[in-house]
Amino acid sequence: MNTPAYSVIPLGGIREIGKNMWLVSQGDEMIMVDAGLKFPSEDMYGVNHLLPDFSYVLEHQRQLKAVILTHAHEDHVGALVPLYEQLDHPPPLYASEMTIGLLGERVTDINPQYADLLQTIQPRERHQIGSFDVEFLHVCHSISGAIGLAIHTPDGAIVFTGDFKMDPTPIDQQPTDYFKFAQLGEDGVLLLISDSTNAANPGYTISEQEVAQGFRNAFYRAKGRIIIATFASSLHRIQQIVQRCEEFGRRVAFVGRSMERMTARAQELGYLKLPPGLELSHDEIDSLPPEKVAIVTTGSQGEPMAALSRMAAGRYNAVSIQAGDTVIISATPIPGNERSVYKNINLLLERGAEVLHESRLGLHASGHASQEELKLMLNLTRPRYFIPTHGEYRQMSRHADLAKATGVPADHIFLLDIGQRLSVSAAKAEVTEKIPSGVVMVAGHGTGYLEQKELRERHRLVKDGVLLVSLSVDVNGQPLGAPRLSSKGFIIDEDANLYEEVAERLLQAIEKQLEKWQGQDRVPTLKDTESWLNDHLSRIIQQKTRRKPVIIPLVHQLHPHLEDATEMTGEDEDV
Amino acid sequence: MNTPAYSVIPLGGIREIGKNMWLVSQGDEMIMVDAGLKFPSEDMYGVNHLLPDFSYVLEHQRQLKAVILTHAHEDHVGALVPLYEQLDHPPPLYASEMTIGLLGERVTDINPQYADLLQTIQPRERHQIGSFDVEFLHVCHSISGAIGLAIHTPDGAIVFTGDFKMDPTPIDQQPTDYFKFAQLGEDGVLLLISDSTNAANPGYTISEQEVAQGFRNAFYRAKGRIIIATFASSLHRIQQIVQRCEEFGRRVAFVGRSMERMTARAQELGYLKLPPGLELSHDEIDSLPPEKVAIVTTGSQGEPMAALSRMAAGRYNAVSIQAGDTVIISATPIPGNERSVYKNINLLLERGAEVLHESRLGLHASGHASQEELKLMLNLTRPRYFIPTHGEYRQMSRHADLAKATGVPADHIFLLDIGQRLSVSAAKAEVTEKIPSGVVMVAGHGTGYLEQKELRERHRLVKDGVLLVSLSVDVNGQPLGAPRLSSKGFIIDEDANLYEEVAERLLQAIEKQLEKWQGQDRVPTLKDTESWLNDHLSRIIQQKTRRKPVIIPLVHQLHPHLEDATEMTGEDEDV
Repeated sequence: MNTPAYSVIPLGGIREIGKNMWLVSQGDEMIMVDAGLKFPSEDMYGVNHLLPDFSYVLEHQRQLKAVILTHAHEDHVGALVPLYEQLDHPPPLYASEMTIGLLGERVTDINPQYADLLQTIQPRERHQIGSFDVEFLHVCHSISGAIGLAIHTPDGAIVFTGDFKMDPTPIDQQPTDYFKFAQLGEDGVLLLISDSTNAANPGYTISEQEVAQGFRNAFYRAKGRIIIATFASSLHRIQQIVQRCEEFGRRVAFVGRSMERMTARAQELGYLKLPPGLELSHDEIDSLPPEKVAIVTTGSQGEPMAALSRMAAGRYNAVSIQAGDTVIISATPIPGNERSVYKNINLLLERGAEVLHESRLGLHASGHASQEELKLMLNLTRPRYFIPTHGEYRQMSRHADLAKATGVPADHIFLLDIGQRLSVSAAKAEVTEKIPSGVVMVAGHGTGYLEQKELRERHRLVKDGVLLVSLSVDVNGQPLGAPRLSSKGFIIDEDANLYEEVAERLLQAIEKQLEKWQGQDRVPTLKDTESWLNDHLSRIIQQKTRRKPVIIPLVHQLHPHLEDATEMTGEDEDV
Repeated sequence: MNTPAYSVIPLGGIREIGKNMWLVSQGDEMIMVDAGLKFPSEDMYGVNHLLPDFSYVLEHQRQLKAVILTHAHEDHVGALVPLYEQLDHPPPLYASEMTIGLLGERVTDINPQYADLLQTIQPRERHQIGSFDVEFLHVCHSISGAIGLAIHTPDGAIVFTGDFKMDPTPIDQQPTDYFKFAQLGEDGVLLLISDSTNAANPGYTISEQEVAQGFRNAFYRAKGRIIIATFASSLHRIQQIVQRCEEFGRRVAFVGRSMERMTARAQELGYLKLPPGLELSHDEIDSLPPEKVAIVTTGSQGEPMAALSRMAAGRYNAVSIQAGDTVIISATPIPGNERSVYKNINLLLERGAEVLHESRLGLHASGHASQEELKLMLNLTRPRYFIPTHGEYRQMSRHADLAKATGVPADHIFLLDIGQRLSVSAAKAEVTEKIPSGVVMVAGHGTGYLEQKELRERHRLVKDGVLLVSLSVDVNGQPLGAPRLSSKGFIIDEDANLYEEVAERLLQAIEKQLEKWQGQDRVPTLKDTESWLNDHLSRIIQQKTRRKPVIIPLVHQLHPHLEDATEMTGEDEDV
């Protein structure tokens, strides 16, 4: 066998956190593992979210036999709908009961008949999907129903850990399936693809169970209401909070759109259990004494539109922060969100609330494995080849160091880039091609895609604003009066006369330029005049103000009423 | 005595980090303590830096007897030049030799005669400044020449700590002046105004001396070049690096504009000592073996234009990162800078460098006191009244808690806001007025101020781009052809015909509107037409695209050649 039979390709989630998407292919068949989105950084003006470029998949859609989702976090599932919308015949979707429960409606909203595509699987089940022999494995993570998977090949298994931690005392008493991962290692793992999120954290990630004690301390000390912000998808966390509410005689309200939706759905599916009468409706919050109330809400990352941020700003009707409230932020800021989180904390304190947020108070536990757990996974599976995924380069390269420390040879470790196809067999592993890959920016309000060019223009708009120049000319390109200038987000000192002066200078310069063109026997088109205006005005403005606003020139060509009116719609008039 | 004689007013540095500026006044005289700037957050598009609004000082400039600068960091001195430029007769400037050494030229650049204003003071000196009896006190901070001050009043001293830490083993063996602060406490402190930066940090800030061991470990392990990023003003840190270079036989190059300028100036002034032949010019860097080279540079906060960021991006000629380099980031990211710092780390790792940055490696020590040190300062000075300064609200309120814990009564602690005048006497302290105060945004390239309105416009530009509509009309307001549309940073789906269609719809609508106006016997002015265009186009675009770009309408009024040409420059044509 010369050509390796199996290959893997990341379309996202490599050298970045977010938009996780992998392809595993063999012959002319492939399966996709995860279809996630990514949240934009602050400098991606107007971008709502990012998707992996899956044009390769669309082009080869007949090869796609299944999509497997490891768990229901947006960075693993948020690209599913756009993918299924663009596929002519979407393939079956395999996921746990929980994931299907949370995601299924999104799929049937595209097309009710797609209900047939939803395949609920259980951990330790083994399915033949096309030519792929896929086994599902339970892992612990911050959301229930998280799985890893093993694709059995004649050369050993290709193992995806999914997002995981080795929590020895999880809330649902279902630790990551040590035995199965060990058995895979014993039988031979060809390739391990493992979560790098916390590869820079020494030691162990604390158990979700340890958070119980942190919350007990906080509940014990709180005199007034307790308001807890966490991710709506962190159902283990929310279950614990519910248990503390029972223990301390508080009723609990769920506040914030995604929190309300998620907790309702999770109760339906049995993933969140509340004793009857514990849940509090929004209307009842103010009718109970403060020491009987707990509120679980969104906004732990300082997202401006989330409930906690609006409470902090005094713009949330259902709950106004009052002196004596204890606010617990049960999360760690994702890099880039620190300032927004601190802004909320400042505002909450100014309103008289006590705010508990430091991780040392034991009010949060990460859902991802730290260094010792990652080494344990490497020791259990003993892979021939290794790919760190789900991390920035700094985390991937730390994970690579850990793999080396456990005995994986350096040349068996691949720090891939998106689009790289790694072909693997017992004999060798190598990058054999680079397929089209990248990022697609989805604009605000989800109405369309944003091009790189527009993003660059927005960067310039942001830096120096926009300056508009408009001019009317006759059929010979002769200006009919001075140009008009107008601007947004751009100011020229305090000199209010500058626009007038610049317009005057421009007019003189145009007339000179026209003479030049006439000397060359040229009648300038509108485009000529606009491009000349752009260049000349840029120079004047930069000279006068040292700024570089985006300049938009618009030239109208006009005719005296009595002349031929048809020229008015000549081709140069087209935009 | 009914009216309290002394009052203090913060003009910045309260509920924020940055733009520190205090006024202390008595009768009709006042002195200013610090004159700092603030760095903008990422969403302040095009803002270069922020200044306190010191219009009150300009209005009462005859009262201003002196400016005292506690140390040479920009958040304490960066507003000095704009202040001195706007004062008719700037008052004397009091500061340490180091601070004057670094700042003096900026002052004499405004006016050479201002050299007479520079008053170099020594710690423990006591100066009569107008009616103020001011004593200067040595404090430890991350820059040399840092001072606090005591203004002696009949009711006890008003004490400013300045930025400080209680480092027991500073590099220059000059700890904060425990005795003087204790003596002030013994004699009676009326009011303490103390640094809150690290008020949320438990325990003690590690000594600058402990960083020595962190660097020794790093130097011992490094096989190739060592590149260290730190603040140019952290001269103690740089001195330590120089000592490690001597110890380990490496020569050192200073790279990056502010680093080169600062180290040159500090050597002139004797604040940085290099043995002859240790310093390496940029040209020599590549001629020495890597294990003989250390480079000290800027960019520890991921600032995009700083040397380290440019090295990481491969855009710095003097130094290209190579495999085997060890990069040490000797700083903690300021909240908001995390993402930029991590971006650099990823790029440096991809170029094959090793990157050391975690604080647990002992490669950085903060310059600000942590909780135990703040309590020590409170215990030494035993103030009657207390104001936490130099912090966001979350830090100020933690500092207030510490003060309460040391015995300051809660109603003797003031969480002020900028502009609030706190009048203090032995009998009482109260906020007696609020003077004009706020923030002034300085635009990029330092050429002017930016108004709130422009910032709001930039926010909209950023979100949805800009759409320009331009129309020519005759003297009756009748359109001469369809409007022209053009946009930047705004895209309308993939529908290339949309502009044409919208222009056509607009034209029809204008004509209807004109009939309406004619029915009312009205000839629309250009402003009427522009405002109508703005509203109508907004609606169409929002309907079609659900987006809200900034719309700029520009209407030209034109006349047939043969009509009266003077109207062309009529008042409606003015911009």
